[in-house]
Amino acid sequence: MKNTYAVIMAGGVGSRFWPASKSKTPKQLLDLTKSGKTMLKATVERLAPEIPPDRVIIVTGKNIIDEVILAVPEVPKKNILAEPQGRNTAPCIGWAALHVKKLNPEGVMAVMPSDHLVAENGIFKEASQKAVNAADKGSIVTFGIVPSGPETGFGYIETGKEIADGIKTALGFVEKPDLETAEKYIAAGNFVWNSGMFFFRADKILNEIKSLMPELYKGLEKIEDSIGTALETSVLQEVFPALPSESIDYGIMEKAENILCVPVDFGWSDLGSWGAAYNLSEKDENRNVIDGESIIIESTDCLVRASDKKLIALAGVKDLIVVDTGDALLICNKDCDQDVKKVVNRLKELGKKELL
Amino acid sequence: MKNTYAVIMAGGVGSRFWPASKSKTPKQLLDLTKSGKTMLKATVERLAPEIPPDRVIIVTGKNIIDEVILAVPEVPKKNILAEPQGRNTAPCIGWAALHVKKLNPEGVMAVMPSDHLVAENGIFKEASQKAVNAADKGSIVTFGIVPSGPETGFGYIETGKEIADGIKTALGFVEKPDLETAEKYIAAGNFVWNSGMFFFRADKILNEIKSLMPELYKGLEKIEDSIGTALETSVLQEVFPALPSESIDYGIMEKAENILCVPVDFGWSDLGSWGAAYNLSEKDENRNVIDGESIIIESTDCLVRASDKKLIALAGVKDLIVVDTGDALLICNKDCDQDVKKVVNRLKELGKKELL
Repeated sequence: MKNTYAVIMAGGVGSRFWPASKSKTPKQLLDLTKSGKTMLKATVERLAPEIPPDRVIIVTGKNIIDEVILAVPEVPKKNILAEPQGRNTAPCIGWAALHVKKLNPEGVMAVMPSDHLVAENGIFKEASQKAVNAADKGSIVTFGIVPSGPETGFGYIETGKEIADGIKTALGFVEKPDLETAEKYIAAGNFVWNSGMFFFRADKILNEIKSLMPELYKGLEKIEDSIGTALETSVLQEVFPALPSESIDYGIMEKAENILCVPVDFGWSDLGSWGAAYNLSEKDENRNVIDGESIIIESTDCLVRASDKKLIALAGVKDLIVVDTGDALLICNKDCDQDVKKVVNRLKELGKKELL
Repeated sequence: MKNTYAVIMAGGVGSRFWPASKSKTPKQLLDLTKSGKTMLKATVERLAPEIPPDRVIIVTGKNIIDEVILAVPEVPKKNILAEPQGRNTAPCIGWAALHVKKLNPEGVMAVMPSDHLVAENGIFKEASQKAVNAADKGSIVTFGIVPSGPETGFGYIETGKEIADGIKTALGFVEKPDLETAEKYIAAGNFVWNSGMFFFRADKILNEIKSLMPELYKGLEKIEDSIGTALETSVLQEVFPALPSESIDYGIMEKAENILCVPVDFGWSDLGSWGAAYNLSEKDENRNVIDGESIIIESTDCLVRASDKKLIALAGVKDLIVVDTGDALLICNKDCDQDVKKVVNRLKELGKKELL
């Protein structure tokens, strides 16, 4: 994949993993499934050797740039781009496209989140090769995850006929459905989950932005000349925060024509909650997932993350998520792991910035 | 109660309140029901003004003597006695009796634990007056708690006929019964719980020790001359650890004759577990007992003690005990609060002295 550049989106906090995830330790810099590496590191390693680290571009927030550099020392520092402010995925991808285009006018971008899991790297690579080939010929290509059930937490892609081995047309992108609709999609059989992983040439996506998101394009034009120069940071600081905050899905994917989809089944998870982290972690004989020093008495089906130097004792409990950090402790029922958002919102209301 | 001296037994750790209770912060130095004061302080205050602090003697362990002095500054330092080593209640009371006898040869001792709760101080005082009067005339008198049910966690006292207003004979002391036996006691109607609170003249208890625990008495004789002198600490260090480790209940109460019992009902609790602490604490509108900074989402019937500067968030949980200290965290089901002992035992096995 000689002309291919990975663009890893590593902004955001992933607040559903509070209190482990905070502004300085966002989800992508955590190891949530006891894999031994951060999710960002795993994402970078998954790409090699086809896309080596020097062709990996990471877009992150300027508040965590130092932490990202430390997390993936194999990625050249100049490839780690810091947004002055998060503006959703469309400006992020547009800016990255300017970088790729400058490095290689024919460059193909493999765009992906930094905080998703892939269990089957071999299948991932094979599918990526197909997607890159199609993207190289000028298409916008997306990975569509073969759904395991009527999930309401994901957007869906309706696929059409197979135009080549393993590549289908994408008839349309739809936002997160209600359960009834999701069940119809599953019954129909030709719907896949929108994974947020896309493949396209840099010039192609910039053209699409020009026609479908002209305001964003104007902003990118202001940035373009400074790309890779000493001026980039100051120009960015001025222009980027004013770019329209829009997702690439809404801004481009739902509107562009002739999008292709590669349906994939490589053990993907967006790891959306502590419960998902529990499900995807290796369990002990009591179905517990324990990280840190602990004493467990008559307790099962729990996820425990202890902070350094803190001993956690459980007695007679079941189905709990327990996450202790130096400054905060979360205890929630595994079925209520979506309530973590409520906790984070309460902290915001209370102005507890130091805990966010 | 001019000739009356309180002897408050404040040794022990109360490990069922781990991790709040540790060797340096034993149960009696905690405020477990959010009353605003430590249990020891509450015990001292309960006695005044009838027994003022200068007639209060506290027997504790030498490892926590500084903490005890700080906890009850109103008690003269010379009244706070440090055992070189815990030897159960009989040696503790025998040694305290030597002190009382030296202060006042006709002194009456009101002996009580430092870690029990009394809700109705007025009733406590009234009953104490009766007990002191009888003790002053030469009897051993004990408080018997009017039982609220067939508890198997307490010893019982069988009471006989009423010999004066509110004072009965004690026919016998029995150890913790099984449930069937406890139910018989309750049905019989003349059994009360052994509260561990006793009243007697110092010379009376020393005489009883002389006849019923001669080995202990010999040890006390070796200590007696040093009482209140500069030599006391070194003599104690030599003699005390070799005294027979025995409870006053087993050594004296179960064997002595002519013991009297004042049945009392003053809202007593020995506060034997976190669940008991929960039951006796004031609850909020969700029946939670929260001490410390917290965010509570859809959670009820929990007791939470946060350490300083640590925020605890609960989501979707019920009936939990959550106790966070700087170095340890306990999470247990309220029904499993006796398992805390198992946690402490495991810590002992693991040699984690710093957490005990």
